[in-house]
Amino acid sequence: MNYTYQSLFDFAKAIFLKIGCPDADADTATKVLLSADLRGVDSHGIARLIGYVRLWEVGRVNANPQIRIVHESPSTAVIDGDKGLGLVVAPYAMQVAIDKAKQAGTGWVAVKNSNHYGIAGIHAMMALEHKMIGISMTNASALVAPTFSTERMLGTNPIAYAIPAKHQPPFVADFATTTAANGKLEILQRKKENTPSGWVQDIDGNPSQDANILKQKGALLPLGGDRVHGSHKGYALGSIVDILSGVLSGASFGPWAPPFPAYVPLPENMPGEGLGHFFGAMRVDAFRTEDSFLEQMDLWISRFREATPVPGQDKVLIPGDPEREYEAERRVKGIPLHEEVIADLQTLSDKFSVPMI
Amino acid sequence: MNYTYQSLFDFAKAIFLKIGCPDADADTATKVLLSADLRGVDSHGIARLIGYVRLWEVGRVNANPQIRIVHESPSTAVIDGDKGLGLVVAPYAMQVAIDKAKQAGTGWVAVKNSNHYGIAGIHAMMALEHKMIGISMTNASALVAPTFSTERMLGTNPIAYAIPAKHQPPFVADFATTTAANGKLEILQRKKENTPSGWVQDIDGNPSQDANILKQKGALLPLGGDRVHGSHKGYALGSIVDILSGVLSGASFGPWAPPFPAYVPLPENMPGEGLGHFFGAMRVDAFRTEDSFLEQMDLWISRFREATPVPGQDKVLIPGDPEREYEAERRVKGIPLHEEVIADLQTLSDKFSVPMI
Repeated sequence: MNYTYQSLFDFAKAIFLKIGCPDADADTATKVLLSADLRGVDSHGIARLIGYVRLWEVGRVNANPQIRIVHESPSTAVIDGDKGLGLVVAPYAMQVAIDKAKQAGTGWVAVKNSNHYGIAGIHAMMALEHKMIGISMTNASALVAPTFSTERMLGTNPIAYAIPAKHQPPFVADFATTTAANGKLEILQRKKENTPSGWVQDIDGNPSQDANILKQKGALLPLGGDRVHGSHKGYALGSIVDILSGVLSGASFGPWAPPFPAYVPLPENMPGEGLGHFFGAMRVDAFRTEDSFLEQMDLWISRFREATPVPGQDKVLIPGDPEREYEAERRVKGIPLHEEVIADLQTLSDKFSVPMI
Repeated sequence: MNYTYQSLFDFAKAIFLKIGCPDADADTATKVLLSADLRGVDSHGIARLIGYVRLWEVGRVNANPQIRIVHESPSTAVIDGDKGLGLVVAPYAMQVAIDKAKQAGTGWVAVKNSNHYGIAGIHAMMALEHKMIGISMTNASALVAPTFSTERMLGTNPIAYAIPAKHQPPFVADFATTTAANGKLEILQRKKENTPSGWVQDIDGNPSQDANILKQKGALLPLGGDRVHGSHKGYALGSIVDILSGVLSGASFGPWAPPFPAYVPLPENMPGEGLGHFFGAMRVDAFRTEDSFLEQMDLWISRFREATPVPGQDKVLIPGDPEREYEAERRVKGIPLHEEVIADLQTLSDKFSVPMI
């Protein structure tokens, strides 16, 4: 069964209000959270609502944070998220980046003391309406083993770029810096299927195809999979995200990044505060006239879309195409929810006396 | 036989002078070119000297360019390289990024009308002495097929990040956004060996392990290799490099990027001028105190270096470790050159009456 966007919106917003979010924050958090469901990233949407609530229950999320700039220059800022929901802290920070870019051409904002911020792409996309290029990244709890490591040192640390065009839809890339994101493993776990090769390794660093291997101290692999296929590049990418999000901001980082599940204890000796994010906004007219950039982006996109496809494929995709198709369909036909997610929402409904969707 | 750095330096600089580079430019071009040989990236060093000369011979390289800023904002600039050697244009542009960062906190410079710029990392590393994070990327002639494409649409489009630390050596990542760079194929061609799986495909998009497949209209594959292993992420990364370097600057881009071999005709209907690059410089003290950042980077690096290695590996590497080890060794023991490279240098020696190394 599918649920309308509005019904999920009303439910999630009511829950955020119940835990003490101000109305505007509850609104923002809900929009960001559900953008994942609309765009087909089911692992990061309403399925995580109960996880955020549990973080609030154990005192790791502050529902009414005083988000503030603690350091700045003409094109930069560092923001202290005051343990707020990343779903709220991130749009605040991205807006600061956009405001900086209006003045200085570009704006770059590092965030500390935050929490999980939903899908990376939705924050980058805030730049589009201002004819800016938007950039968004975040660190996350350590599930990924660097090349040659058995230890989990990095999160799936996504990178998102949103680039405006004129008549074409925008270029929106949003991807974990691993071969596969954790959400893909969860889907295989539910189906009781193995992973393809090159996604995970076991506790000793041996190749594995067990979708449950993370529960046995296995690890996700950096994009590339193994050394001969370029895993050192995925490791470098995940590291760059960790350093910009964590070290530059004053957040925790690497193996000390705080976990999303509230039952997992915080790491000892955390070197910084909470989770970190990094955002960028670049005004295209800080580089060339807005119109000439947008027209050339149209050319870029249309040329790549017309590239000769391999046999059996209709067309070559532009980053952002699949998510946009999901959104067009789900706005009309509604959003499907897994039965485990529905059970979690029922738990929240009972706990907070909010009518079930 | 190994050659001393100084002997290669004197030879290459003499050649650059012979084609008409001003002394300072010949000096810069030689330093940038040979940084590849020092750092173990043999494909991008003096092996390419004859290629640059050939581009000059056919009029695609201007040995005495008037490099200039054509558009700017407090934190950005676009530079017209005037068809100069990328080896000279890139350091000029990176210096502009650094100067912008001194004023605005960060500096971002897109470059058009340039040529191949050597290794990406050496330009990013210019930021280190200023306690800035340096970023460098470039587009390149199309050898890479996007996911689901048989057509070659992107270059190997490298990304480099250089991040300073306090007592630890800096973090320096420099990698093509493909599974393997073209230089790796050239090594296998000389050895008459096949590639591993996942590096290349044939003209019809079928998997191939033929190291010569590019000569038969095959293609390199984006980092990830195939869709199930995340090639759409490598494709997105290569695209981002192409858009920032090419579209944002007004250079040519995608399948229209100019080729390095002078015998390959320029693409028809090029949408911009020459090759494009993109550089960034971020003052770390635009985000937090310089000392606190550098100390935390030391912690990041030492913690990752201490990660438990897989059996059979001594240690987990930090990006930049292998290149630094190469440089330490080659500064002492000299630089080995392949016999084909020596023959090319002999050709240049004869042509320009420069004493052979």
